[in-house]
Amino acid sequence: MKEIYFDNAATTRIDDEVLKEMIKYFKKEYANASSLHFKGRIAKEAIEKAREIIAKSINAEKEEIIFTSGGTESNNLILKGLFFSNYPEKDHIIVSKIEHDCILNSCKFLEALGAKITYLNVDSEGFVDLEELKKSITEKTFLVSIMHVNNEIGTIQNLEEIGKICKEKNVLFHTDACQSFTKVPIDVKKQNLGLVTLNSHKIHGPKGVGALYVKKGTLITPLIDGGGHENGKRSGTENVTGIVGFGKAVEISNTLNHKEGLKKMRELQEYLIKELSKIPNTRINGPIKDLDKRLCNNINVSFKNIEGESIMMLLSEKGICVSTGSACSSHSLKTSHVLKALNLIPLEANGTIRVSLSKYNTKEEIDYFLKNINTIVKRLRKISPFSD
Amino acid sequence: MKEIYFDNAATTRIDDEVLKEMIKYFKKEYANASSLHFKGRIAKEAIEKAREIIAKSINAEKEEIIFTSGGTESNNLILKGLFFSNYPEKDHIIVSKIEHDCILNSCKFLEALGAKITYLNVDSEGFVDLEELKKSITEKTFLVSIMHVNNEIGTIQNLEEIGKICKEKNVLFHTDACQSFTKVPIDVKKQNLGLVTLNSHKIHGPKGVGALYVKKGTLITPLIDGGGHENGKRSGTENVTGIVGFGKAVEISNTLNHKEGLKKMRELQEYLIKELSKIPNTRINGPIKDLDKRLCNNINVSFKNIEGESIMMLLSEKGICVSTGSACSSHSLKTSHVLKALNLIPLEANGTIRVSLSKYNTKEEIDYFLKNINTIVKRLRKISPFSD
Repeated sequence: MKEIYFDNAATTRIDDEVLKEMIKYFKKEYANASSLHFKGRIAKEAIEKAREIIAKSINAEKEEIIFTSGGTESNNLILKGLFFSNYPEKDHIIVSKIEHDCILNSCKFLEALGAKITYLNVDSEGFVDLEELKKSITEKTFLVSIMHVNNEIGTIQNLEEIGKICKEKNVLFHTDACQSFTKVPIDVKKQNLGLVTLNSHKIHGPKGVGALYVKKGTLITPLIDGGGHENGKRSGTENVTGIVGFGKAVEISNTLNHKEGLKKMRELQEYLIKELSKIPNTRINGPIKDLDKRLCNNINVSFKNIEGESIMMLLSEKGICVSTGSACSSHSLKTSHVLKALNLIPLEANGTIRVSLSKYNTKEEIDYFLKNINTIVKRLRKISPFSD
Repeated sequence: MKEIYFDNAATTRIDDEVLKEMIKYFKKEYANASSLHFKGRIAKEAIEKAREIIAKSINAEKEEIIFTSGGTESNNLILKGLFFSNYPEKDHIIVSKIEHDCILNSCKFLEALGAKITYLNVDSEGFVDLEELKKSITEKTFLVSIMHVNNEIGTIQNLEEIGKICKEKNVLFHTDACQSFTKVPIDVKKQNLGLVTLNSHKIHGPKGVGALYVKKGTLITPLIDGGGHENGKRSGTENVTGIVGFGKAVEISNTLNHKEGLKKMRELQEYLIKELSKIPNTRINGPIKDLDKRLCNNINVSFKNIEGESIMMLLSEKGICVSTGSACSSHSLKTSHVLKALNLIPLEANGTIRVSLSKYNTKEEIDYFLKNINTIVKRLRKISPFSD
């Protein structure tokens, strides 16, 4: 069977070069990076090299990067850690309505402990309302957390503008950059970022490892206590091979090859959007007026009157992997909170699939997909009770 | 240079078979296990297979195992998660004085939030005082957390006895089994365990992955919120390759080969303890009256009047990796809280090294170590200001 992987916003295939580097540490340099003997020091040096590469990639200092088990942990650490270090003097957090579940569910947990949360609205393309943001910041606000790129619809928020507002109001600014990292430039100084969530498995690195930029001088209570690893901010035996692989994946993103990959994804995206738009009763969700404001690998499309799950399953039978929304919430059958925030009606929202590309995808794969999606949509609409 | 690795309580070399299995998932089955397309389902099945193997190994049900990023996270989740699901109705936790830093520092965090902690004393070999335990349990106690095997001195606690006491008093019993797992039998039913912490990198599996047994029906607030992975108890994209490797490492522990490895470690341990005891002013810490109560791979020895760090560094120059205490606290120069609890005087405690073996070690390596340690101890004592 053909195998076409269009679910790169959920996770990506590991780069061969990344795996090669990791295997060296799996086989030979397996020591605990906190051990002080020669093998421990070799592991430690590998971690510090990765830390430096990652810091540089977002214009941060090496000491400002801490490693975690992934994006979800990083986001939890930021919200909960800052709550515990600020409460009760400050108790207010501002997020957008289209944040990832790990942000929204951390907010719920904190609300039960006394936190006040403002959920910012977004416009029809998913951009947060900057005027609403300005008005929402109070003396009790200790954090503004707005994701760089939305995982479902690819909207790229204007970090410079948000950062400027936070700077004026003297409030910490966090962005979840899991989807954007290595695809859209991040500069913690220019964008006035106090905290950034990064992860590895969306950029052809291994799963189970992520990072966090925490601006020097920021007080944050650890989520995971223990031996005081990662400058006391995140304890636990360092995942040496994971960190080495993550570093290598970021290093690769500095190559010309990577830039060409981004360009290729954009071309395939434009072609796909153009062709999908020809199918009747179809809506492309997320930015379409100006594609520069949309992540180059994201296509989110709603086919009215049919079920996204059915489309996804029929594509899967043809060897094509797409998702209906975020992978994380795929087991719940609730309508996506992101599409709800865009005010889609249920008959549109429920017929949504997300196609997310990588550097490995080709035009041939897109054409095979287009052929199949056309057939599937027709077939499902024929049997849909909602069709005209 | 020779390379002799005697730091297996800190972490272990990955088993070749484990790595082979992982590489398959790295290269080919890299999908997100929460994705519903065919590739996602393959990843999911691999995770469920590992879950089953791990559950079986401690006589638990598959649904009672949840995956985390490691032992430290598991321990944090238990203490903090149970605090949030029990407080303020119940506010009391009982731990021993020789728990791992991740337990003790989680207790400190919870004390600041209102928890009451009882720290149980241990005897000269590191065994907890069962009478003190009985007396300490009150109506407000929601958890007794006592590690199965101590990471520094190898003491194996009597889980059956502790479990019996907890059952009588109707209190949840947790054990941190990071050091004992696959080396000392664990049976959650016989030992009346409500929660068990397990990890992978101490048993020749990969770093960055651990697990947690949570008895059916136990209410625990998640530490990491998000998409509701792991039955809602631990969110975040599943570390597929890590979990696959962990499962394989546990599977290997069912082989005859593994049992022979344990026997070999015990023989090398007995030999090493006998030979080290010949060095004057030397003290073996942890159980020595009955070696069956000591983990088969642990040797902890204090050389009076000299510094453990110096011994460790000089051994490292000869290609031998040992530690001074736990790897996690190796960067702090404080006296080990475990040795303090045993009432060692500083001139003994400070001269301590830990040798921890694996199935890969040989008698030749032990002899090479013995030759070198004898020379190093003599040399350091000659220049020590404390020597007679």
